[in-house]
Amino acid sequence: MDYNQIFTRIYNEIRQYSKEGKQADYIPALAKVNPDRFGICLQTAEGSIYPFMDADVTFSIQSISKVLSLAMALSIKGESMWSRVGKEPSGTAFNSIIQLELENGIPRNPFINAGAIVVADMLLGELRNPEEEYIEFIRALADDDSIDYNMEVANSEKETGFLNAAMAYLLKSYGNICNPIDDVLMFYFKMCSVQMSCRQLSKAFLPFSQHNKQFDFNGIRLTTSQIKRMNALMQTCGFYDEAGEFSYLIGLPGKSGVGGGIVAICPMRYSVAVWSPRLNPKGNSVMGMKALELLTTYTEESIF
Amino acid sequence: MDYNQIFTRIYNEIRQYSKEGKQADYIPALAKVNPDRFGICLQTAEGSIYPFMDADVTFSIQSISKVLSLAMALSIKGESMWSRVGKEPSGTAFNSIIQLELENGIPRNPFINAGAIVVADMLLGELRNPEEEYIEFIRALADDDSIDYNMEVANSEKETGFLNAAMAYLLKSYGNICNPIDDVLMFYFKMCSVQMSCRQLSKAFLPFSQHNKQFDFNGIRLTTSQIKRMNALMQTCGFYDEAGEFSYLIGLPGKSGVGGGIVAICPMRYSVAVWSPRLNPKGNSVMGMKALELLTTYTEESIF
Amino acid sequence: MDYNQIFTRIYNEIRQYSKEGKQADYIPALAKVNPDRFGICLQTAEGSIYPFMDADVTFSIQSISKVLSLAMALSIKGESMWSRVGKEPSGTAFNSIIQLELENGIPRNPFINAGAIVVADMLLGELRNPEEEYIEFIRALADDDSIDYNMEVANSEKETGFLNAAMAYLLKSYGNICNPIDDVLMFYFKMCSVQMSCRQLSKAFLPFSQHNKQFDFNGIRLTTSQIKRMNALMQTCGFYDEAGEFSYLIGLPGKSGVGGGIVAICPMRYSVAVWSPRLNPKGNSVMGMKALELLTTYTEESIF
Amino acid sequence: MDYNQIFTRIYNEIRQYSKEGKQADYIPALAKVNPDRFGICLQTAEGSIYPFMDADVTFSIQSISKVLSLAMALSIKGESMWSRVGKEPSGTAFNSIIQLELENGIPRNPFINAGAIVVADMLLGELRNPEEEYIEFIRALADDDSIDYNMEVANSEKETGFLNAAMAYLLKSYGNICNPIDDVLMFYFKMCSVQMSCRQLSKAFLPFSQHNKQFDFNGIRLTTSQIKRMNALMQTCGFYDEAGEFSYLIGLPGKSGVGGGIVAICPMRYSVAVWSPRLNPKGNSVMGMKALELLTTYTEESIF
Repeated sequence: MDYNQIFTRIYNEIRQYSKEGKQADYIPALAKVNPDRFGICLQTAEGSIYPFMDADVTFSIQSISKVLSLAMALSIKGESMWSRVGKEPSGTAFNSIIQLELENGIPRNPFINAGAIVVADMLLGELRNPEEEYIEFIRALADDDSIDYNMEVANSEKETGFLNAAMAYLLKSYGNICNPIDDVLMFYFKMCSVQMSCRQLSKAFLPFSQHNKQFDFNGIRLTTSQIKRMNALMQTCGFYDEAGEFSYLIGLPGKSGVGGGIVAICPMRYSVAVWSPRLNPKGNSVMGMKALELLTTYTEESIF
Repeated sequence: MDYNQIFTRIYNEIRQYSKEGKQADYIPALAKVNPDRFGICLQTAEGSIYPFMDADVTFSIQSISKVLSLAMALSIKGESMWSRVGKEPSGTAFNSIIQLELENGIPRNPFINAGAIVVADMLLGELRNPEEEYIEFIRALADDDSIDYNMEVANSEKETGFLNAAMAYLLKSYGNICNPIDDVLMFYFKMCSVQMSCRQLSKAFLPFSQHNKQFDFNGIRLTTSQIKRMNALMQTCGFYDEAGEFSYLIGLPGKSGVGGGIVAICPMRYSVAVWSPRLNPKGNSVMGMKALELLTTYTEESIF
Repeated sequence: MDYNQIFTRIYNEIRQYSKEGKQADYIPALAKVNPDRFGICLQTAEGSIYPFMDADVTFSIQSISKVLSLAMALSIKGESMWSRVGKEPSGTAFNSIIQLELENGIPRNPFINAGAIVVADMLLGELRNPEEEYIEFIRALADDDSIDYNMEVANSEKETGFLNAAMAYLLKSYGNICNPIDDVLMFYFKMCSVQMSCRQLSKAFLPFSQHNKQFDFNGIRLTTSQIKRMNALMQTCGFYDEAGEFSYLIGLPGKSGVGGGIVAICPMRYSVAVWSPRLNPKGNSVMGMKALELLTTYTEESIF
Repeated sequence: MDYNQIFTRIYNEIRQYSKEGKQADYIPALAKVNPDRFGICLQTAEGSIYPFMDADVTFSIQSISKVLSLAMALSIKGESMWSRVGKEPSGTAFNSIIQLELENGIPRNPFINAGAIVVADMLLGELRNPEEEYIEFIRALADDDSIDYNMEVANSEKETGFLNAAMAYLLKSYGNICNPIDDVLMFYFKMCSVQMSCRQLSKAFLPFSQHNKQFDFNGIRLTTSQIKRMNALMQTCGFYDEAGEFSYLIGLPGKSGVGGGIVAICPMRYSVAVWSPRLNPKGNSVMGMKALELLTTYTEESIF
């Protein structure tokens, strides 16, 4: 399939939305990004790569990092990890503290902030050099050693992330954080701060679309069943309280971040990453959502 | 693939759970069913049928009916129906009235009770003979004119369904019910009361797995895109607050009912219906869940 | 103390607010009342009466009726009534259904709608002729046989009271309603519909300010301790989610209704009733609140 | 009235409850207190003092401190303080974080933890030497310079107070904390840690029962109206989600702490402090509640 041609067609349709939505500005470092950027890159199971427009500009992956930290935790702790975090869609906004209290300190899933903070705490407890091993895992996935943390973004979040701190303390009050809270939060913010381009992201997520191939990157191994299950989690929980809408319109497992990036997977076929900083009220990229909706419409490739 | 052989293998593994869980007893008519029943039936896209054990015993389809009423509403009203009901997973128990109030009378999705009551109200407003057209649609799908309502079950629910009545009145207070509440509830309870066997259910759901074929039954038509979207909704919302778990373990779109039935779809491959009355605390059939988990494990067929 | 002079002084200060707020219009019959009315009447323990302006115009007492039905229930059932309804302030709006679900069908107190519906159900179960005995109790309290139900208001509420019906069904689903729901609701709406003037109300509430005198009206008897406890309940729960504000500004036990009436009690000294139909966003009479605040400021009489 | 005789009578009746309830143990320093202690002390407007049993043993005043910090804030900031904290009863447990999120970072009242943390932040912003001025205010009220902070208790809370930290960060995320969180929490924990005896407490609270006298202690001044309003707040909000029960049974404004202390006020008559460490499930002293209930029953003195 000629994805380049499809991307051109898609772009012509969605450019009318290029001024819609509002870029995340709660982190000063994110507010400085040019909001008019748009990039997309698709990599097929056969190895073809289709970069389009700003596909090589790096941006803050933010919550997309939650898939990668989950992969590490699942690899290291296996199914036992689910005693500390659930697998159900959250049904409320991504940073809701209400849900946490109602459910006794067990976050609903690893893709809401509270859940990812618990995952960060797990990794801190299991890894010898968590920050180094995390970035090395991503570099191995993307086969690109230039990928790195953005300390300006991480520090910026640290200084303004009062809600995340509130959640970490609430988790701690329920006994669901083992390491010092400042360490857990700093590691969490660093993971979110990683800078990647659409090309790097699509490469890094391709292995999650290939459950028939061995998954082993820098020592992080996942079984066929674990890969499929990570897809299932992205499908049901990857888009905050817009997971149903994404599944309905697009029909692919995926994950978005407030930096404006979205990754999605078509099992056995391709991975795709799209980026555009303006967000809809649910915190997902406006043009990114539209682009992926048209992609599955035009290619008629979805999981359903 | 020899599904008969797989079913035998599955049954030998899950029979140890045959006394686990508790049959629904909030409706007297449901409590009378023999809880030790187990049946399963799979139909392939090519037309092969694999009935196993009690595959021809009929039971109360209960919430599985919500997929069928949604199909009718989506066919008749199209995307405009979503102004009155959402598409997001519910995140709380299937009968929660809290969620309804927090969200101003718009139920989160058409598969929670409140959402299905709104769908029932839509059908009452659009159809000339709603009860007749609904049962005729199912008969056409299953190609079996013997399928019918079970008035004992429907009346039993009517007499004890105070929580559903509370939700209907709450919806009405928000202006999201147009017809008389007693009519809406009676129609809703009748739809839930339909008696079907695993064989009939698997036949009735096969068209939802075949988005490449024309969907047209008794005048109810769905487009390719609409079929896929119904699959997406079953995937994210089909199992109350166990939708994530089902997706994680089984990886297929589906829908369960408190009568102990579950249907699931493997797009372009097969539909399957399983039945066993004992339920887990989330309201889903214990043996049904185990059977489907093993089915996708052994066949390695899932959407991911 | 010359209350007439004080009322004149108060009225001159509060007339500037005479167009503030909005009269209740969710019941058509209430919306027909002239919103510019203002009346107040105070009766002292010694028997003096101070009517002012529209003190003899009758209006719908609405939630003020909840004090009177509670008095009957407390007299008949004693402390055992508290197994079905709580004594704590509600903390949320007067018609919240959320709270009810979180607390398993036990309304927080008898002055929120759900609690008063449970009280209505108690009276239906205990009295031979509930509607007659209720109105006779009020007539005895106010020593005025002309007081009666307003069936136009009651029927109007019955036709539009979907939220109250939702609460009644939810209570029923928890087993906290014993009589047929339609009967309970009709009795509840009738009690709310009683028409009284400020003069009649202040007379009817005087006995609640006199715990040193025998309380016995048409066979309804309360002990000294029960009278004091009813005052305590009015103090903490009488003003929906503005109970704290009322207590802070005015410092008297009292009860308001959406008809624009408010009664308040100064133990051992006086009872007072004020009426003005325009309500603040919390559902309490704007001018009524101001008048009572100034009354306790100028007289320096409050319970604190 | 001979309060000594009444205390003897009360103690004989309540000693049967002396092993009921459970002492607070979430702070190690509190768990070390002998749970079998019981003391009570009453001081009349005329100046008589009635100590009984352990009336001179000091204990941790905990949440009783919230009345004293509120008095300082009200004196310094006046009515403008209410823009940052409400006056309504909380309706849920004393440490609920849910309520805080639903209400956009404005705690419901100054006597729940979140509200008292905001008050602590106000004082930090207004006072030159907050810790010194706070303890000097108490010493002046109680006319006893020996009163002091208990740093073991304060540090113990600091190390385990994750829930309070969560609330402080949540408040900060809503912009309702101005000073560094660690400073605010340490000040809050220190205020809670003050050690006082029943004798000292009853002396310190006597001025709150005397709205006819000038209130001026170490420069903290309250008007007649402010004193009355503080009584109103204690009445409606002083006992977590048992405020209604306390008002119903006891009928006096008051405040309890998890150290097992309770103070109450009978306006123009007396102040009373009682202490017994075993708490009921709502966090209030079992024997303290019983003692005060019998006190108002036997004396027939209450605000109603």
